[in-house]
Amino acid sequence: MILDRIDSPSDVKLLSSDELDELAGEIRETIINTVAKNGGHLAANLCVVELTIALHRIFDLPKDKIIFDVGHQSYVHKLLTGRRKDFDGLRRLGGISGFPKRDESEFDAFGAGHSSTSISAAAGIAAANKLSGSDAYTVAVVGDGAFTGGMIYEALNNCSDKEKLIIVLNDNDMSISPNVGGMSEYFSKVRSSAKYFRFKNGTKRFFEHIPLLGKGLIKGTRKIKNSIKRIAMSQNFFEQFGLNYYGPLNGNDITHLERVLAEAKDDKKCSVVHICTTKGKGYKYAEERPDLFHGISGFDIESGKINSSGRQSFSEHFGELICKHAEQNEKIAAITAAMPDGTGLSQFAKRFPNRFYDVGIAEEHALTFACGLATEGVIPVFAVYSTFVQRAFDQLIHDAALQNLHIIVMLDRAGLVANDGATHHGIFDTAFISEIPNITFYSPNSFESLDICFEKALSASGPVVIRYPKGNDYEFAGAVKETDVDYLDIGENPKSAVITYGRLTENAYDAAVILNKKGISARVISIKTLSPLPIARINELLSGIESIVFAEEGIKNGGVAQRLCAEMAESGAICKKRFCIKAIDGVFPQHASNKELLELLGLSPEAIACEIERMKNEA
Amino acid sequence: MILDRIDSPSDVKLLSSDELDELAGEIRETIINTVAKNGGHLAANLCVVELTIALHRIFDLPKDKIIFDVGHQSYVHKLLTGRRKDFDGLRRLGGISGFPKRDESEFDAFGAGHSSTSISAAAGIAAANKLSGSDAYTVAVVGDGAFTGGMIYEALNNCSDKEKLIIVLNDNDMSISPNVGGMSEYFSKVRSSAKYFRFKNGTKRFFEHIPLLGKGLIKGTRKIKNSIKRIAMSQNFFEQFGLNYYGPLNGNDITHLERVLAEAKDDKKCSVVHICTTKGKGYKYAEERPDLFHGISGFDIESGKINSSGRQSFSEHFGELICKHAEQNEKIAAITAAMPDGTGLSQFAKRFPNRFYDVGIAEEHALTFACGLATEGVIPVFAVYSTFVQRAFDQLIHDAALQNLHIIVMLDRAGLVANDGATHHGIFDTAFISEIPNITFYSPNSFESLDICFEKALSASGPVVIRYPKGNDYEFAGAVKETDVDYLDIGENPKSAVITYGRLTENAYDAAVILNKKGISARVISIKTLSPLPIARINELLSGIESIVFAEEGIKNGGVAQRLCAEMAESGAICKKRFCIKAIDGVFPQHASNKELLELLGLSPEAIACEIERMKNEA
Repeated sequence: MILDRIDSPSDVKLLSSDELDELAGEIRETIINTVAKNGGHLAANLCVVELTIALHRIFDLPKDKIIFDVGHQSYVHKLLTGRRKDFDGLRRLGGISGFPKRDESEFDAFGAGHSSTSISAAAGIAAANKLSGSDAYTVAVVGDGAFTGGMIYEALNNCSDKEKLIIVLNDNDMSISPNVGGMSEYFSKVRSSAKYFRFKNGTKRFFEHIPLLGKGLIKGTRKIKNSIKRIAMSQNFFEQFGLNYYGPLNGNDITHLERVLAEAKDDKKCSVVHICTTKGKGYKYAEERPDLFHGISGFDIESGKINSSGRQSFSEHFGELICKHAEQNEKIAAITAAMPDGTGLSQFAKRFPNRFYDVGIAEEHALTFACGLATEGVIPVFAVYSTFVQRAFDQLIHDAALQNLHIIVMLDRAGLVANDGATHHGIFDTAFISEIPNITFYSPNSFESLDICFEKALSASGPVVIRYPKGNDYEFAGAVKETDVDYLDIGENPKSAVITYGRLTENAYDAAVILNKKGISARVISIKTLSPLPIARINELLSGIESIVFAEEGIKNGGVAQRLCAEMAESGAICKKRFCIKAIDGVFPQHASNKELLELLGLSPEAIACEIERMKNEA
Repeated sequence: MILDRIDSPSDVKLLSSDELDELAGEIRETIINTVAKNGGHLAANLCVVELTIALHRIFDLPKDKIIFDVGHQSYVHKLLTGRRKDFDGLRRLGGISGFPKRDESEFDAFGAGHSSTSISAAAGIAAANKLSGSDAYTVAVVGDGAFTGGMIYEALNNCSDKEKLIIVLNDNDMSISPNVGGMSEYFSKVRSSAKYFRFKNGTKRFFEHIPLLGKGLIKGTRKIKNSIKRIAMSQNFFEQFGLNYYGPLNGNDITHLERVLAEAKDDKKCSVVHICTTKGKGYKYAEERPDLFHGISGFDIESGKINSSGRQSFSEHFGELICKHAEQNEKIAAITAAMPDGTGLSQFAKRFPNRFYDVGIAEEHALTFACGLATEGVIPVFAVYSTFVQRAFDQLIHDAALQNLHIIVMLDRAGLVANDGATHHGIFDTAFISEIPNITFYSPNSFESLDICFEKALSASGPVVIRYPKGNDYEFAGAVKETDVDYLDIGENPKSAVITYGRLTENAYDAAVILNKKGISARVISIKTLSPLPIARINELLSGIESIVFAEEGIKNGGVAQRLCAEMAESGAICKKRFCIKAIDGVFPQHASNKELLELLGLSPEAIACEIERMKNEA
């Protein structure tokens, strides 16, 4: 294998054209084999094989920097930068991350996971280089999907004065799902008018070579040139931001790519290189359904069959639930930020197309758009991953909560999301949603309680947020089920209690079972209404209890446990009780299975049980 | 006065052209007189007098909706919608708000205060109207400054399928300060090429009237038309998003405005009406210095002299401080999101122009751009208002904290900001910054401690956030000053303590003085390091204390007080102590003076003292 000889980008520069093609094939094979086993991002990586090779040949890494937007297309880059031997451990505990990571390699200039940050980061690096007088280049690789996110435009607006900065627009006409909106249509037009652009470049060169004879004539000619230019050579989108533009060109052709990247490199000004690629390139199932093969948990290479747990997920259950209600209630509309499949909304999209809005990777807009709908009596349901709603924090405060508008936010992927790792865990929402006035905040622990919370949300009058994890239902069997809390005693007259919410209810229950085997009775309390907290009821349920462990699959500071603990301390309800919080405390959990992560974080059933035992012994 | 006869938009429709001019003059006079007294936004309101009158005549309010971006240009609208008699109380306790507010009037369709939300909200309203079959129009009024904010582009990308939606681009070439970036330059070009656009519209109409004879010919003609169009009629920026475009036109000419708005109204498709206005129009001092007359606390009409407390503000002190350090340390760079004056950076901008970055109203980009700079060893200092950094919450987590990059965020306007009201209070940062791992978070209570915190921030290795209020220094005279906390006993052997941080140190001290007069000794503790909290030291300082009131000028849920209380409860340190939290609990404070607000919120010295007394009596 040629890939076996590639230990750093300098090795790629030595290869012949034939060897490059072979290398591209080997890389595709390696990626397909690894993702089939480990899960991960497939289609986006297959489409940038040639681009990444070309970038590694034209630029000098690590002096020059490549910033991958979102970063789910960085596998090729990882394989070419000394990490091919570690590639087997992709996304696994202790193995390499599925995203660029500064800790992992000097070749990963800037980490990512969320969309549309690359040009901002690259502009910062280019600005620093300008200050220090460095002659290093900075390249941002951005998919067209990221152009539905507002940050890209904020950054583009700040690029015209940057130097040695190159933005590669990797245009495959897809976000995770097919791309949406006016900008996407514009890119399509540009792609289909490649001929026109060739003409335009020719014209430009022609005008630039008109000889200039004398000052007056120069001015006159310039004026004529400019007005002809303005008419005959319309500025395209990027030129309007004051940037140079190259393209569109075939982004799966290494020779062509190298030629144009070298041209852009010679250009002092910040430039945009627009390349067209095929998402999923080289694996037929992924080419046919790049949306399905975007991010996956593993698949069978021969048949293209994608692994599935076979059990319904919370997302799927929500998808059915909203359709059921939408049949009866015409006011319900659904919004997604480029994730109709991931959030379970694809059925709704098919059945109620006029009430379905895919706004692109635009969480801020999505939230305020929902608020606009709500002012006119529509009930907008915005389904979004917990980690991505962080983008709409200000809109939740300023547009939804302050105006007390009736919108519903379905927070999918709340809590740990396993192998996607640090950028994707939904561990902050319990803290940052709780602090916003007027928001009712639910954390159902089962499909049944999700149904109830959703019904309450539909009939509410202000903003409601409902959080649930990536994964399946858990039946808290035998528990007493109330509106705001479920609870269950394992053993008689418990003096200990484990409090939790959401998915961790299972571990709390299992901890109580462990304790019971050791002769310790415990009460398990699962809170379903996080805000406003049902303090009075919780205090009642804790009245005979001496030792309390609050287990929280979320950040400790500002989390539910601290809030409850402080409320109990203030009211004196904590008097003669011991209270211990097990939560995610000041760290960013990495990538691993959820089971492994919960163990590392001290949230396994054993660790929770152990804490209760410790408290009893210290009493 | 004609204005005295205007009680609703229908009254404006009855006026003659001459009366309209008179009305415009009266409105300007009223606004100048009121803002001179009450403070508020001047220049932006003076520039939209004609626009607002024209909108009220062409559209049918409240059925049709006008959404004002940021909302600081809504005074004219308020005067014309039945609030002229309340205008005297503008921004005062119990009076009308300086921003649009749904609670205040049925004519305020959507509230604002932060930039770039209007098109998203308007798109939501237009979508709801489309669903319900309503024939109402929705108009978003957006300044060119807002086009430096990413949300605008997210929204524009979702407008091409909306109907009866009109976006008025109010182009005055200013944010608060002169506008920045590639898009601003593009708008300038468009403004200066008004002739070209007139030609273009003519051409378009010509091509649209070519008769079409037979199917083949249609197709052929279309093809020719399209290719000629593509070349002869370049799409401007908005057309690239699939929207219709009208303009640019004189936005201070009512007749012209009415004609074009009526045209846009006839257009089924979403359209953009680009108007050019003069910021500060009609008051010479504001026309000359629209930046100074953007938002002010009052001024003398004759001389144009703007009110000032005469004492140095935290912003000004920071401005001097960063210049002093930047002289010695070439690595320091400064970033503002369109607020060089408000954040105290204008001196830095003049003295170190190559290390100064005004990125526009683009907090998300600003933060990630800072992170990019930091990866190359620059020390970026991003000065931003607390309420606006909410926009960069995800970037703080995902780009700064997760990568543990050395950036410094100076959080100005932390805490209450008085008369700007609900959208502007910086009351959430203590909660949402504290929950992010890796961030060191300071809350200096004086200029002296700001100096020390800033020095510590410069020599730190990860992200540091420093918060300080709008306003002046407070000298915590006589206090013992340590690294993380200051403290002072008023009276002997105190059994009570008031804990606080930042500006509220003054009220805490005053509360202790009140208590002392009543024979109650109290210890006052002012925390300067909010994260990580100096728990051990605080516990020591509370060792002999029985009653604790934590007074917090921030939101209660997730705030510093709850965090401390929970930590003390967990460790058992709270045993035999009573702990009471006085903070902003589940409400959005409105507009009033800070003194009034603190009284309403139970944070006056008297209220704090009273709480200690209550606890002592209950003991």
